[in-house]
Amino acid sequence: MTNLENMGALAKSAARTLRIEDSSVKTEALELIASALLQKKADILTANALDVEAAKGSLSPSMIDRLSLSEERIESMADAVIAVSKWPDPVGQVLEERVLPNGLHVQKTSVPLGVCGIIFEARPNVTSDCAALCIKAGNACILRGGKEAFHSNMAITGVMRDALSSTALPADCIQLVEDTSRESAAEMMALTEYLDVLIPRGGAGLIRSVVDNAKVPVIETGVGNCHIYVDRAADISMALDIVFNAKTSRPSVCNAAEKLLVHKEIAAVFLPAMAEKLAEKDVELRADESACRLLPHAKAASEGDWSREYLDYIMGVKIVNSIDDAIDHIERYSSHHSDCIVTSDQAAADRFLASVDSAAVYHNASTRFTDGGELGLGAEIGISTQKLHARGPMGVNQLVSYKYVISGSGQIR
Amino acid sequence: MTNLENMGALAKSAARTLRIEDSSVKTEALELIASALLQKKADILTANALDVEAAKGSLSPSMIDRLSLSEERIESMADAVIAVSKWPDPVGQVLEERVLPNGLHVQKTSVPLGVCGIIFEARPNVTSDCAALCIKAGNACILRGGKEAFHSNMAITGVMRDALSSTALPADCIQLVEDTSRESAAEMMALTEYLDVLIPRGGAGLIRSVVDNAKVPVIETGVGNCHIYVDRAADISMALDIVFNAKTSRPSVCNAAEKLLVHKEIAAVFLPAMAEKLAEKDVELRADESACRLLPHAKAASEGDWSREYLDYIMGVKIVNSIDDAIDHIERYSSHHSDCIVTSDQAAADRFLASVDSAAVYHNASTRFTDGGELGLGAEIGISTQKLHARGPMGVNQLVSYKYVISGSGQIR
Repeated sequence: MTNLENMGALAKSAARTLRIEDSSVKTEALELIASALLQKKADILTANALDVEAAKGSLSPSMIDRLSLSEERIESMADAVIAVSKWPDPVGQVLEERVLPNGLHVQKTSVPLGVCGIIFEARPNVTSDCAALCIKAGNACILRGGKEAFHSNMAITGVMRDALSSTALPADCIQLVEDTSRESAAEMMALTEYLDVLIPRGGAGLIRSVVDNAKVPVIETGVGNCHIYVDRAADISMALDIVFNAKTSRPSVCNAAEKLLVHKEIAAVFLPAMAEKLAEKDVELRADESACRLLPHAKAASEGDWSREYLDYIMGVKIVNSIDDAIDHIERYSSHHSDCIVTSDQAAADRFLASVDSAAVYHNASTRFTDGGELGLGAEIGISTQKLHARGPMGVNQLVSYKYVISGSGQIR
Repeated sequence: MTNLENMGALAKSAARTLRIEDSSVKTEALELIASALLQKKADILTANALDVEAAKGSLSPSMIDRLSLSEERIESMADAVIAVSKWPDPVGQVLEERVLPNGLHVQKTSVPLGVCGIIFEARPNVTSDCAALCIKAGNACILRGGKEAFHSNMAITGVMRDALSSTALPADCIQLVEDTSRESAAEMMALTEYLDVLIPRGGAGLIRSVVDNAKVPVIETGVGNCHIYVDRAADISMALDIVFNAKTSRPSVCNAAEKLLVHKEIAAVFLPAMAEKLAEKDVELRADESACRLLPHAKAASEGDWSREYLDYIMGVKIVNSIDDAIDHIERYSSHHSDCIVTSDQAAADRFLASVDSAAVYHNASTRFTDGGELGLGAEIGISTQKLHARGPMGVNQLVSYKYVISGSGQIR
C-alpha cells in the first residue's frame, strides 16, 4: 500500500463511522474544532510565519497576502466553522417516499458522499472551511494544499484532528496529504477505490489538470469569464453602477465581470460614460473595432481575449447588433459561471434568462452575488461550473448523495 | 474539425433550440417518433436482418437474441417512447425560491443537461430508449452503438430523425456515430467542448474503460455484484423465495443476486434447503470453507469470486459470524448496486439499511426491484452505481441540471 492508499483506507473507515453518527455528534465536533482553532492561534501563527518567510521573494505580494494568517483571520476561520455547524443536517432527509402497489415501501434518503478529496492552492483558510463542510455532510476528507502553505496546513489539520480525538468521530475524518509533489496529486486523481469525489479549488491551470487527468469523479469549479450585456433598453445609470461594481469591487474573484457587451443603439451614449467611471480604478479596456472608435484609450482586443478570465483590472468590451448576438457570444465564450443582462425590457430579460445556459443568470444585478453566503445557501466548498451533480455555489447540501431504502414483506418479482 | 467535433457542434446547436421549447413540442415529437417506428417496422427489420446474419458464427446465441428485433420488439420500443412522452416534463421546475433581504429574487430552476453522449453495445432498443429519454429532458444526444448493431441503429436513428424533421425540433437532436472503431469511442470520451455528460451502457469492460479514460463527466452505470444476507432471525421460507427469485428469475441482469451471506446460527438449517431449491435451476454454488461442509455439491470459492458479477446461474456463498461481518463483507466486495437483508429482527434491519452504502438497500424483498419501472420512477437510461449526480435508476428526472435565475432592480455588492 502506498501512503495515499493507506490514507484512503483510513478515510473510508472513518467515513463508515461518520455516516451513521447523529447530527448532534457532528455539531459538537465542529464546535470543538472552532474552539481549538482559537485556543491554538499562537501555534498556527508560528507555523504560518514559516510559510510566509519562505514565500518572500518567490510569491507575488497578493499571493503572500492570501497565504498570510493573522489573529483576526483565524477568528474568521473559527466563525466559519461555527456557521457550518449551525446549518441543518443535510443527511437522513427523506427526499421522496412511496408505497408501491405490491406493498414495497420505498424511501429515497440523503446520505453522505463518503470520502471527498480536495486539491487546493495557497489559502490556509480553505483547510478549515473544507473540513467543516465535509464533516457537516458526513464525509471524511483528504486535503491536499499547496506546498507554499505546508506548515500552516499541518498546524491547522493537527489542531482539528486533536479536537476530533475527544469526540465520537475518528481523527481520520480529516487528513492532510503531506507530500505536495505533482506525483501525489496524480496519485490522488487515480484513487478511485477510496475517493468518491475530487474537488479542485484554485486557478484555471489546476482545475484543467484535474478535469483532464482524474479517474475519480470530479466537480469542476471556479473559472469565471462572466459577462454583462447592456441592452438597448437598459437604464444607463443602473448599468454604470452594476458594471462598475461587478468589475472593480473585487477583481481577483471568479464572480467578477470580465466582459462587457453593449447593444449598438446605446453604445454611443453608454460606453464613454462607462469608460470614464472605470478609469477611476484604472481599468484597462480591450475593445473590438467598433467599440474602439468610441473609446480612444482602449486597446484592441484579440480573439484570445474573449475567452480569458483576467482576474484583474482589465475588461473586454464588444458592441453587439442585437440581444441574440449577445446570447450567441456568451454561448460561445462564457465559462458559464455568471452572466447578466441589464434592461428595462422584461421580454428581453426573459429571453436572456431562458437562453443563457450558465450556473447563474442575472437580470439587473451585479454578478458578484454568485456566492453561497450572498445567496443564502451557506458556506461553499466551491462554485461548480459543470452541470452534473451540483451547479453554482456548492454548500453542505451539495456534498451529499442519496440511496433507495426499500422495505418489504417477502416481495419477489 | 473532425467528424465527431462537427456532430458535437450540431448537437450543441440543436440543444439550444431544445432547451427553450415548450413541453408540448417535445411530447408531440416523441409521439411522432413512436408512430414512425411502427410505420417503418419493415425497413427496420430488413436492416436488423443484415446485422443478425453477420453476427451468426461470431456472437453467442444469447448475444444474437439481444441483437434480434421482431415486430413485437419494435412495438415495445414504440410503447416505451410513448411512456416517456407521458412523463411530466422535468425541465423548468422551480426547485427552490427565495427573496433575499436586499430584494434579489432567486429561483433555482431545473434545466436540461445539454448534450448527452451514450456509448452502448449490441441492443438496438437502447437507441430509441435513450433518444426518447434525452429529448423528454430537453437534451440532444450523440449515440454510439456497437458495430454488431450498426445497420439496425442506422435504420432506427434514420426513422427518428425523419420524424423530427416534421416538428419544430432539429433532426440533430438525435445523432448516431457511424464510425464504430475504438478510435471514435476514445475521441468521444475527450469531447469536453461539446458533451456535458457521457453515459456508458454495457458490460463491465466498457464501463471501466469509459470511467478510466473519459475527460467528459461520466455517470458510471450498471455493474451489480448484489448480496443477500440471511440473518439469524430470518424467516426461512421467505429467505428461500427471495434468494431463489433474485438469483434465477433473470440472471443476466445487473440487479440479480450474485452472493449469498448466511448467519452461522441459521446456516445448517437454511443452506441445504437453499441448495436444493437452487438445484432446480442448476445453479452452481461457489462456497467458502465452512459453507462447503454443508453443501456437498458446491465448489470452493476463490478470493476473486467475492467481487465478481457472474450474470449467470452461479452464486457465491459465505457463512458469516454476525451481521457486522456481513456488513463488512458487503463494504469490501459489493459494487454497491443493490444489497439485501432478510430478517424478522427490525433492529438488525435498521442497522443493515443504515450501514450498507449501496444505491438500493433492501429489507425482506428481492434485489430484482432495482429498476426504474418497478420503483415507479419511469423508464431508465441506466442504473448509476456512483454517488455524484444520480444514484440507482436514472430516468428523465435525473437527466437534468439546474441553474440560478436571479432578478434584481440594480443591486450591487
